[in-house]
Amino acid sequence: MISAGTTLRTIRERKPLVHQITNYVVMNETANATLALGALPVMAHAVEEVEEMAAIASALVLNIGTLSERWIEAMLLAGRVATARGIPVVLDPVGAGATRYRTETARKILDAVGVTVLRGNAGEVATLVGAEAEVRGVESMAVGVEPAELAREAARRLGVIASVTGPVDHVSDGECVLAVANGDELLAAVSGTGCMSTALTGCFLAGRPEQPLAAAAEALAAFGVAAEDAAAGAHGPGTFHARLYDALFALDPDTLDARTRVEAL
Amino acid sequence: MISAGTTLRTIRERKPLVHQITNYVVMNETANATLALGALPVMAHAVEEVEEMAAIASALVLNIGTLSERWIEAMLLAGRVATARGIPVVLDPVGAGATRYRTETARKILDAVGVTVLRGNAGEVATLVGAEAEVRGVESMAVGVEPAELAREAARRLGVIASVTGPVDHVSDGECVLAVANGDELLAAVSGTGCMSTALTGCFLAGRPEQPLAAAAEALAAFGVAAEDAAAGAHGPGTFHARLYDALFALDPDTLDARTRVEAL
Amino acid sequence: MISAGTTLRTIRERKPLVHQITNYVVMNETANATLALGALPVMAHAVEEVEEMAAIASALVLNIGTLSERWIEAMLLAGRVATARGIPVVLDPVGAGATRYRTETARKILDAVGVTVLRGNAGEVATLVGAEAEVRGVESMAVGVEPAELAREAARRLGVIASVTGPVDHVSDGECVLAVANGDELLAAVSGTGCMSTALTGCFLAGRPEQPLAAAAEALAAFGVAAEDAAAGAHGPGTFHARLYDALFALDPDTLDARTRVEAL
Repeated sequence: MISAGTTLRTIRERKPLVHQITNYVVMNETANATLALGALPVMAHAVEEVEEMAAIASALVLNIGTLSERWIEAMLLAGRVATARGIPVVLDPVGAGATRYRTETARKILDAVGVTVLRGNAGEVATLVGAEAEVRGVESMAVGVEPAELAREAARRLGVIASVTGPVDHVSDGECVLAVANGDELLAAVSGTGCMSTALTGCFLAGRPEQPLAAAAEALAAFGVAAEDAAAGAHGPGTFHARLYDALFALDPDTLDARTRVEAL
Repeated sequence: MISAGTTLRTIRERKPLVHQITNYVVMNETANATLALGALPVMAHAVEEVEEMAAIASALVLNIGTLSERWIEAMLLAGRVATARGIPVVLDPVGAGATRYRTETARKILDAVGVTVLRGNAGEVATLVGAEAEVRGVESMAVGVEPAELAREAARRLGVIASVTGPVDHVSDGECVLAVANGDELLAAVSGTGCMSTALTGCFLAGRPEQPLAAAAEALAAFGVAAEDAAAGAHGPGTFHARLYDALFALDPDTLDARTRVEAL
Repeated sequence: MISAGTTLRTIRERKPLVHQITNYVVMNETANATLALGALPVMAHAVEEVEEMAAIASALVLNIGTLSERWIEAMLLAGRVATARGIPVVLDPVGAGATRYRTETARKILDAVGVTVLRGNAGEVATLVGAEAEVRGVESMAVGVEPAELAREAARRLGVIASVTGPVDHVSDGECVLAVANGDELLAAVSGTGCMSTALTGCFLAGRPEQPLAAAAEALAAFGVAAEDAAAGAHGPGTFHARLYDALFALDPDTLDARTRVEAL
């Protein structure tokens, strides 16, 4: 049963700590999205402390948007602790397919860590399942495969919940596929909105850890509804961006479910 | 004599350079807050240059929000130069108490550097004076000690001006305690507002270096007044955040003192 | 023939990938400015991947705003690949003159890389041509040299297009000097607007690589027009900043040329 409203209410009551090892470009943005939703972000990447931090978190977010060796090491350390303790992990394979380093790092994390949800765009996810993809930097698309099928295939092959975002998002556990149709095209004009959706997936996993498929879809639906609210009255990507935090903050658990457009395919 | 307006006027006349070695999450935010107030921010963290940069600055801001070894090394190098030259130093012990690494790093800086002002939340400061604290990531609170008493105790034990922020802020030199009641609760919904108050403390120290207790309280009062202005007309944390820079920029030295709510306890 | 509108149209049609190795303070800002204009930003700094990323980009942006050793190494690696492949490179020598490390790094990049455009403020550029400059952190001015002459001199001595920004911008190839008079003084109240102009210079070079002098001037003119639009209705630097992305997004190729104020001196 999908209910973004119910999970949001839980998040706001518990204020779960969401540990994020993410890229430099979006750190402020994902911290603010997490806070606006009602959870508690913490950024920590030092190998000296990530295990301790991950161990007290309710979810771990790994994002490879701006990589380097020590950060990968930290992601693996934190990811292993989270796995051992049953803390849900979201991986955002930013730019997988654009360079070998990114593709290999994403694969390394998938191998070493019990990734709960893989949240990426179609090209990134296609790259990781070995399908053909057209990748340009951090934007990409899958070639010749339907996104619903891609999500199902990725979930099966990689043993994760696959959350493939695009004009319509597709989330799958390898059997069921949920399509999420909320959102606004201004999301594509703001840097880091994909990373925000990953961070919010971490929040929803913290709120509903026992149902990761539902949680992943609820996160995208809630973010999409906030984007719709932010777009109404925005004059372009800058005011949309500011209003997006307002809209996340104002999301109403009581009315959210009526607005989410989630469909089981 | 507390006069945020007078110190603000001095800052805008002199445009002091405020060297900040701070965390990745808030760099843009603290640079913009510094600039909006009327001072000149510079971010530099390379061990190759921090001593040279600190030496030409009017204040040094150290913030441990996203740590790693080379950054700690840089903070110590810059901090020692500032100490030797009598340049005021503000330390923000972000997340002290959350991990050993953060607690130990904050202690190491307090030991090696002549910290002028320690600006933290109650849990962070309590951790550093050995009192009981409840810490969750970068949010925390002291347990079983009044914030005014905590500020006084921290100032005495650590030999600093202690600036403990919360719903009401408390600033102490170990004798006097000043309570600052300006602010708005939306500050808690935006990531990095604590770090901004630290950066602004650096600006006010640069404007009034001979009176660090007054300067630290004035900084919090001015920031609080700006937050009150920003909140009026904001629709949530995103528009509040944008308006916060507008409000800092618009602070009027002539009317500021009448609006600050600073009380000697 | 200067036509910011024509180049902007090309950029939006091709959506060129602009690889940016830039500072921590402004990464989100330059990514968003690039995206709002209509190009595709990618941030990547790992020595393991920068050559591969630079090779697929249409322009490379190097910005030394927050330096450290590995980042310099990455800039040199990416810069050499770009040079070898004829991909235009923009260098922003942030803070050159403020510390030896910055000055020497800027020189090292100018020596090792085929820099197409050097985009800096007057003090930074003056430092690099050996003229007298007054530098305070990342703000600076040239002393005793007209900006038009400085641009021409820098272009000649350094073998680049020199793009010297200020109240009026001056762009030169060593012969011709173009003065660009668009902009708004609120640009100086927002951190990273210089870095944004560098990133947009990269975008315009990607759109018109065969005419770097024209492209550099067009970038500053387009950015200046956007700043004028953003300032109308802004209440200070925070709302101006948000509106700046709206304005870049809304730039109209059909009417842009009529609004640009570019003059050949």
